[in-house]
Amino acid sequence: MIVVMKLGSSDEQVAGVIKRIEAAGLKEHLSRGVERTIIGVLGRTFPELRDMLEMLPGVDEVIPVSKPYKLCSREFHPQDTTVKVGGTTIGGNEIVVIAGPCAVENEQQLLETAKAVKAAGATILRGGVFKPSTSPYHFRGLGEPGLQLLAQIKKETGLPVITEVMSPHEVELVASYADILQIGARNMQNFNLLEEVGRSGKPAMLKRGLSATVQEWLLAAEYILAQGNQQLMLCERGIRTFETYTRNTMDISVIPVIEKVSHLPIIADPSHGTGKWYLVAPMALAAAAAGADGLMIEVHPNPDLALKDGAQSLNFGNFQQFMSQLRPVAAAVGRSVASPPLEVKS
Amino acid sequence: MIVVMKLGSSDEQVAGVIKRIEAAGLKEHLSRGVERTIIGVLGRTFPELRDMLEMLPGVDEVIPVSKPYKLCSREFHPQDTTVKVGGTTIGGNEIVVIAGPCAVENEQQLLETAKAVKAAGATILRGGVFKPSTSPYHFRGLGEPGLQLLAQIKKETGLPVITEVMSPHEVELVASYADILQIGARNMQNFNLLEEVGRSGKPAMLKRGLSATVQEWLLAAEYILAQGNQQLMLCERGIRTFETYTRNTMDISVIPVIEKVSHLPIIADPSHGTGKWYLVAPMALAAAAAGADGLMIEVHPNPDLALKDGAQSLNFGNFQQFMSQLRPVAAAVGRSVASPPLEVKS
Amino acid sequence: MIVVMKLGSSDEQVAGVIKRIEAAGLKEHLSRGVERTIIGVLGRTFPELRDMLEMLPGVDEVIPVSKPYKLCSREFHPQDTTVKVGGTTIGGNEIVVIAGPCAVENEQQLLETAKAVKAAGATILRGGVFKPSTSPYHFRGLGEPGLQLLAQIKKETGLPVITEVMSPHEVELVASYADILQIGARNMQNFNLLEEVGRSGKPAMLKRGLSATVQEWLLAAEYILAQGNQQLMLCERGIRTFETYTRNTMDISVIPVIEKVSHLPIIADPSHGTGKWYLVAPMALAAAAAGADGLMIEVHPNPDLALKDGAQSLNFGNFQQFMSQLRPVAAAVGRSVASPPLEVKS
Amino acid sequence: MIVVMKLGSSDEQVAGVIKRIEAAGLKEHLSRGVERTIIGVLGRTFPELRDMLEMLPGVDEVIPVSKPYKLCSREFHPQDTTVKVGGTTIGGNEIVVIAGPCAVENEQQLLETAKAVKAAGATILRGGVFKPSTSPYHFRGLGEPGLQLLAQIKKETGLPVITEVMSPHEVELVASYADILQIGARNMQNFNLLEEVGRSGKPAMLKRGLSATVQEWLLAAEYILAQGNQQLMLCERGIRTFETYTRNTMDISVIPVIEKVSHLPIIADPSHGTGKWYLVAPMALAAAAAGADGLMIEVHPNPDLALKDGAQSLNFGNFQQFMSQLRPVAAAVGRSVASPPLEVKS
Repeated sequence: MIVVMKLGSSDEQVAGVIKRIEAAGLKEHLSRGVERTIIGVLGRTFPELRDMLEMLPGVDEVIPVSKPYKLCSREFHPQDTTVKVGGTTIGGNEIVVIAGPCAVENEQQLLETAKAVKAAGATILRGGVFKPSTSPYHFRGLGEPGLQLLAQIKKETGLPVITEVMSPHEVELVASYADILQIGARNMQNFNLLEEVGRSGKPAMLKRGLSATVQEWLLAAEYILAQGNQQLMLCERGIRTFETYTRNTMDISVIPVIEKVSHLPIIADPSHGTGKWYLVAPMALAAAAAGADGLMIEVHPNPDLALKDGAQSLNFGNFQQFMSQLRPVAAAVGRSVASPPLEVKS
Repeated sequence: MIVVMKLGSSDEQVAGVIKRIEAAGLKEHLSRGVERTIIGVLGRTFPELRDMLEMLPGVDEVIPVSKPYKLCSREFHPQDTTVKVGGTTIGGNEIVVIAGPCAVENEQQLLETAKAVKAAGATILRGGVFKPSTSPYHFRGLGEPGLQLLAQIKKETGLPVITEVMSPHEVELVASYADILQIGARNMQNFNLLEEVGRSGKPAMLKRGLSATVQEWLLAAEYILAQGNQQLMLCERGIRTFETYTRNTMDISVIPVIEKVSHLPIIADPSHGTGKWYLVAPMALAAAAAGADGLMIEVHPNPDLALKDGAQSLNFGNFQQFMSQLRPVAAAVGRSVASPPLEVKS
Repeated sequence: MIVVMKLGSSDEQVAGVIKRIEAAGLKEHLSRGVERTIIGVLGRTFPELRDMLEMLPGVDEVIPVSKPYKLCSREFHPQDTTVKVGGTTIGGNEIVVIAGPCAVENEQQLLETAKAVKAAGATILRGGVFKPSTSPYHFRGLGEPGLQLLAQIKKETGLPVITEVMSPHEVELVASYADILQIGARNMQNFNLLEEVGRSGKPAMLKRGLSATVQEWLLAAEYILAQGNQQLMLCERGIRTFETYTRNTMDISVIPVIEKVSHLPIIADPSHGTGKWYLVAPMALAAAAAGADGLMIEVHPNPDLALKDGAQSLNFGNFQQFMSQLRPVAAAVGRSVASPPLEVKS
Repeated sequence: MIVVMKLGSSDEQVAGVIKRIEAAGLKEHLSRGVERTIIGVLGRTFPELRDMLEMLPGVDEVIPVSKPYKLCSREFHPQDTTVKVGGTTIGGNEIVVIAGPCAVENEQQLLETAKAVKAAGATILRGGVFKPSTSPYHFRGLGEPGLQLLAQIKKETGLPVITEVMSPHEVELVASYADILQIGARNMQNFNLLEEVGRSGKPAMLKRGLSATVQEWLLAAEYILAQGNQQLMLCERGIRTFETYTRNTMDISVIPVIEKVSHLPIIADPSHGTGKWYLVAPMALAAAAAGADGLMIEVHPNPDLALKDGAQSLNFGNFQQFMSQLRPVAAAVGRSVASPPLEVKS
């Protein structure tokens, strides 16, 4: 932490800052520049200290220097984390494709889709049963019966399943059916939910909030890791910008950024990231070229009849075509696409 | 809902859209312009229809026309809603001042502050005991013992209390101590929490999310009203912009906007709205001039020793001075400042 | 400037940074913390140094400490700047009201409006003749004949005039007619224009860019001041946010912020700031309560027939009513509203 | 254009709107829904009409339906535009690489860089001589002597050159040296500059503004095309978001969006798009995978000594390595990388 004094701050004001630093059990390091006096704070600082020092007379600003996140930082944990689900490893050399409908609607829809995406090469099945919705008047998912359907189709196809959990008290229920717990963008800072998912020990995927910075996202991840759960991956799903042509603006640059600053795997969701089905394939290829460890794609048998987010869903033919485009792009950046389990496990 | 066809869309494509509209039990209204064909959808549309129509061949875009919120809309409910807490009415002609520490720290801090803000003219006491925090390593509040302190100080001073609730399963606990349930900015779209607060029937205050539009905010309010709880007020606490000098950018314009589109009272929180104590008074006066029904101000005996958000807290002297500035501004726009209860109720 | 080294950076890397600092004729100040080594740079740094140091091995980030603006900073120039135009002083105790049509359309429209706003208490007449327009197919102003109209109406009413200049090579022309040169939001970083306005020596008003930070705005002001022109005022006219109900989000907090960090007067433009006429009065009152030195209001004889921005223009009656609301608010914060010149000067 | 009436608007109000539509020489198309009355406007509308109708009593909002841009729209011009410079075609099947220093510093720097990027496969040389700079105290380019250097190195290497022009009155000068005129992000809405570049008839590249929407960008392009200059390409260079880790957020999704809505070629600039050299290669590969027609990369012999933007520049070795990664990615999406001219033209 560095305290920048105002131009013309008095010796008495400087002494006041030093006194407060020492009262906190820390040491100071004084540096008088041409224009300004700067006081470094040495020792293990604590976050509240920033506000406390900034209030003192003569202080212009206080600049934190340490990174606020530790457990998810690559500086403290240089080797890559891999998440293991069924026979699939996320965060290794293979790019993992997660596919399925936005929302589980019924058995036929889910089974057909699971078979189609598996045949095309997806290794994990997605399907929402608790759906966050901006309006109370929209479809909000099947709830627990949807979880049962996911478990059944998992058994029939051998595909592990990922689904969203929205409340701390539902974590246990969802964890009893799902292989990966998804935390949605709107819940990125639902701190009680983060801790409950952390305590569950289940593999989890944390989506970036609509307007979250990388630092806030990693601090949210820190909540989960701090509970002892290391099986965590991050997912970019588009941020809010002024552009209205797309539903969100998918931030591809966050993929190499996360790879640099954190050891956690990074997944890209071009369906929510763009909101338009015809942008999904180019953006998924871009994410793969930029180094994504996985892709999450919405697929529906009849997107124009979907109960949720049809406009951003691929139909079976488009998904199959996309998978055939993905393989050469993965190869061009020295990676391969993970293969689905050959047989049904039981 | 209006369907705009692409330039050069075929008759067959137009017929396809009409067929889908009729299949949904609705009627169409065709309009062929110089450049484009437009199809109005008549009848009670449902939200999923938009995506469904947008996927059809020849469709350029689908524009919703109805407002998605009803219960909180002034169109459907022209008269102002007032929220009643203790002897105070929020949403009437008087401007109500809510004041107190960001976080409850201990009995002395809370009691001293409560007495000071009451003496200066505040009518409701604020104090957080469950504190959302971006980092898991920050102070996160006293929890239930803090609620007990709030109840005790309420008894001693006669001031009703407002405090934040963060999880659906804690609503019952918090509601047993507090007079008003606060839903924080990060939880504006925690839909399970909204519904639980709605079911509680308690007076509630819903803060605007950091990047929420007015429409999203009103839809979140709609979740609460839809559970039968009409005792709701809204609170602007600053949105995220590119500016870094302030912690957030307080959107004063939302005050007259809410007054125009909704019947719910609107409160302004210049402490979170700016993040700097020396901006609190000018922004609170601005909010009053723009028509706010209430102001929520953080006050602390020693801001430079506060465990939370000291940099945005007024000390007792500054708060008293602010209150003396507020009264003439309120009078200048034809309002007055509510008075605190004269005696302790028991 | 402070260089923060990476965790585990080597002595050799630290030595490399020091060598580069010394090569630039500056001195270093080394500080080894518990986690990180920090190197302060002492002496007159230059902006390019930041990038240069950030590229060196072992460097995590480089944090500038000095403010990049000097001439417009209150730290270097504590007393308020006042701008004098005709008999009016902007930046003193009086709040100055600038009013008139968005665009000059014809003599009758301008003369009627000038008389009406003067009668209601405005002291400066606004009117655009070179209009920036997002689309090449919109009305773009009368050009030089519009300047002649402004000069004529100024003569008839005694009101000084402000109008926008859009290109460096038009500064001389516009300056020969106008009393104040306005630089629009889209031109805030048109650096050649800024310098030409600086060289003209004319009183000027610099609008904040749609997404500009305070620092960028002040650096743009610095371009003008650096040419020796001190007669500059700033104007907040709304920034771009995610909200679509209003055309822009007017940032009232920037008023006390500018007052704190700069000595330049600050004007508020609630017409562009909101885009809706019924929000103009509440936001103008809010700006006055927050400390604005002036208000710029669009007024038109028939807003629903205006060639430009009718939706945000007040008609004569609404403007008069607003002025009667403004006076008590100004008084409530210890200011008064400037009066127009009593007689026509010639 | 569609006029949405307020709930409960009167017949008289509807008649008032219709009267105004007819007065403008247009026709109306009335549609009474369950909740609201909607009035379609038929015929060639004009932009000012929106504000005019929105002001009328009983009107809730006016929604434009026609796209405001025509000349750059794919709807009106389905086939791709290609820009031809020297022997290179931009907008065809080949991906074109533009490379060179951010700013021209001196002959040796420019010549060395030109040779190195040509050897690695770049086909066009970039180099700024008029540099926009947020601060008046930063390096702002060599000016005309820099243009002469560009012309000289072009002669020596055979590489066509692109450089920025910042003012309308400098267009003629810059056009006499450069092969492509670049309009920078801060000048995207410098309408006089756009028209002058349009009149010059020179190939041009228009960068997206820092907070511009696609529609605003295309309307800026429309200014150039409206002057008869069709040799235009667009360039995404990152938009402003809340993220501070990167300098800007590069919006890759705009690449397939532009391809869908416009016939103009689209270039990506990952140097400005990210601001960090180690993000340039992954983001350039992502842009290629998403369909970019060209890439613009900053290269410097010694980035840590660059006078401008060293932190985002590749050195020669990194650029060469990037080019070897680009070729397989281009091939994976069915494209190839353009080759530089084999011999020097004279």
